Amino acid sequence: MAAVLAPTLADTRPRSLREIQAPVAADLDVFRTHFRDAMRSRVRLLDAVVQYLLKRKGKQIRPTLVLLSAQVSGGITERSYRAAALVELLHTATLVHDDVIDEADSRRGVASVNVLWKNKVGVLLGDYLLSRGLLLALDDGDYDLLHVMSDAVRRMSEGELLQIETARRFDVTEEKYFRIIADKTGSLIAACMAAGAASAGADDETVARAKQIGETIGLAFQIRDDLFDYDADAAAGKPIGLDLQDRKMTLPLILALDIAPEAEAGRIRKIVRKRTKSRAQTREVVRFVKESGGLAAARGRMEELAAQAAEALGTFPPSEAREALVGLCAYVAARSR
Amino acid sequence: MAAVLAPTLADTRPRSLREIQAPVAADLDVFRTHFRDAMRSRVRLLDAVVQYLLKRKGKQIRPTLVLLSAQVSGGITERSYRAAALVELLHTATLVHDDVIDEADSRRGVASVNVLWKNKVGVLLGDYLLSRGLLLALDDGDYDLLHVMSDAVRRMSEGELLQIETARRFDVTEEKYFRIIADKTGSLIAACMAAGAASAGADDETVARAKQIGETIGLAFQIRDDLFDYDADAAAGKPIGLDLQDRKMTLPLILALDIAPEAEAGRIRKIVRKRTKSRAQTREVVRFVKESGGLAAARGRMEELAAQAAEALGTFPPSEAREALVGLCAYVAARSR
Repeated sequence: MAAVLAPTLADTRPRSLREIQAPVAADLDVFRTHFRDAMRSRVRLLDAVVQYLLKRKGKQIRPTLVLLSAQVSGGITERSYRAAALVELLHTATLVHDDVIDEADSRRGVASVNVLWKNKVGVLLGDYLLSRGLLLALDDGDYDLLHVMSDAVRRMSEGELLQIETARRFDVTEEKYFRIIADKTGSLIAACMAAGAASAGADDETVARAKQIGETIGLAFQIRDDLFDYDADAAAGKPIGLDLQDRKMTLPLILALDIAPEAEAGRIRKIVRKRTKSRAQTREVVRFVKESGGLAAARGRMEELAAQAAEALGTFPPSEAREALVGLCAYVAARSR
Repeated sequence: MAAVLAPTLADTRPRSLREIQAPVAADLDVFRTHFRDAMRSRVRLLDAVVQYLLKRKGKQIRPTLVLLSAQVSGGITERSYRAAALVELLHTATLVHDDVIDEADSRRGVASVNVLWKNKVGVLLGDYLLSRGLLLALDDGDYDLLHVMSDAVRRMSEGELLQIETARRFDVTEEKYFRIIADKTGSLIAACMAAGAASAGADDETVARAKQIGETIGLAFQIRDDLFDYDADAAAGKPIGLDLQDRKMTLPLILALDIAPEAEAGRIRKIVRKRTKSRAQTREVVRFVKESGGLAAARGRMEELAAQAAEALGTFPPSEAREALVGLCAYVAARSR
């Protein structure tokens, strides 16, 4: 797989998240204090929920991106910690709302907030976290960071809604798919990189460059996610065909339908549109996506994007943090969950 | 009923909402344009939902408050329209999220967004509206308005969560009840009045005074709402005993339990704690709240608060807008829905 990658990425072995986070490990601890402080509340129920959220803390990729981006753009400042806390508050708010949305009964392997405390608490907690994030930024006059983040929230919700809309009409072209994932996933990663650079006091051009790299990483990240739905070997323990059952058309399927002869594509389209599919039908579509070359083509796109982001990072001065960001591009392309 | 009210309010006949809105009728039109513009989107599904929301537009009490408060505090400015749009965006976002929360199948007499488009769209739309409100304020540098509003969102979600927490423990004292409704309902009305005054360029003391009056109006407003649950005559067409079935303790019941002899209060408490209540049991509690004098006592508190707010408005110079705000205090106390 490494051979297809552009030079910068090909020279980089995929690193573990721990290695990627190493250059900012101490800074992540400072961020965590800010994050915890921002969530403190007078309401006992809320504290219980927040404690639970802190315990199941995720990979903290977003704060890591903010801090690494700040580091390569001039150096981490007090504002960088607040930017990292802001983005993690927003991200946690969207996760909690997603729990409500998905009526998911598990997330990150732990029972979801939704199931434990019901929808009502989930929605309110999401709103509470959002407002705490806003106040954190407003109290310190970080208006530029707030603008970057609000715009990302707008794009994220627009992207998700566009995906629902197109899913109903089954007319997801490659172009529309990229627009959806740019809004849905690219926007927040872009905002992390932009906020990091801005918090370091970088000039507008540098902030824009960091943002663009983030958007590209976000695209690669989302395609990787969408590949899992068709690739049992890569997706450790994740069930196959879930998007398909949701009638959600993602890149592997879109490219497979483009590549395949019209008759076969037509037959598969009919299955995809079915509201309920048998296990055999789902397996048939998954096999079609693999055998037609759609899966490989989608993986190729993802690797191109990761390589493109890694290469663009070459415009920043060499440093441990820059190497970590390049390592992150490789990680995104190679990660198994 | 008018006889119990303090002078300022006693002299004021309750007005229709149309009369209250008359001094700012033209300004409300300008606000509506800002509101509509802020909700425009590229996503067709979103536009359809937004069109639907605009059609079932509510009483727009919150923008009215912003504009009237601006008018009495120095005069309506461009910032006032944006403040009004911001608050209506936040309010609409919370309504949409409430639809998800309540799994309500109807709101304002029209089928809810939730039922029509499912939870997912409801949550996303709420997030989208929130972000548009933020961007509206950020784009024009209205950071003070944003701070006022974010703090209101924080208090609203904290208040709702505190209510859920206390509902489980059935230990809602009068003091806790007032803390809950101050956060849940007072905060946003207070924010409307504060944002209006700030948008007019009023000094800090005036902004604080407007805010305090808003908080008091908000308390009266919420008690009025809670009275409906026990007062079939006042609540035109609204079902009785819903809060009770939810095991939600509100002021009429809290005061009734305080007033009643211990034995009777104990018997009623047992019924309230039941997870499911028969129609007869619900009717018994409703009758108890009326006959013990709890309902009248709660109505008395509400009227005191409305009168207090009306009196405090006397510190603003006389004007049509001030009369309208005093009329609003009377409206809040007398409204039938």
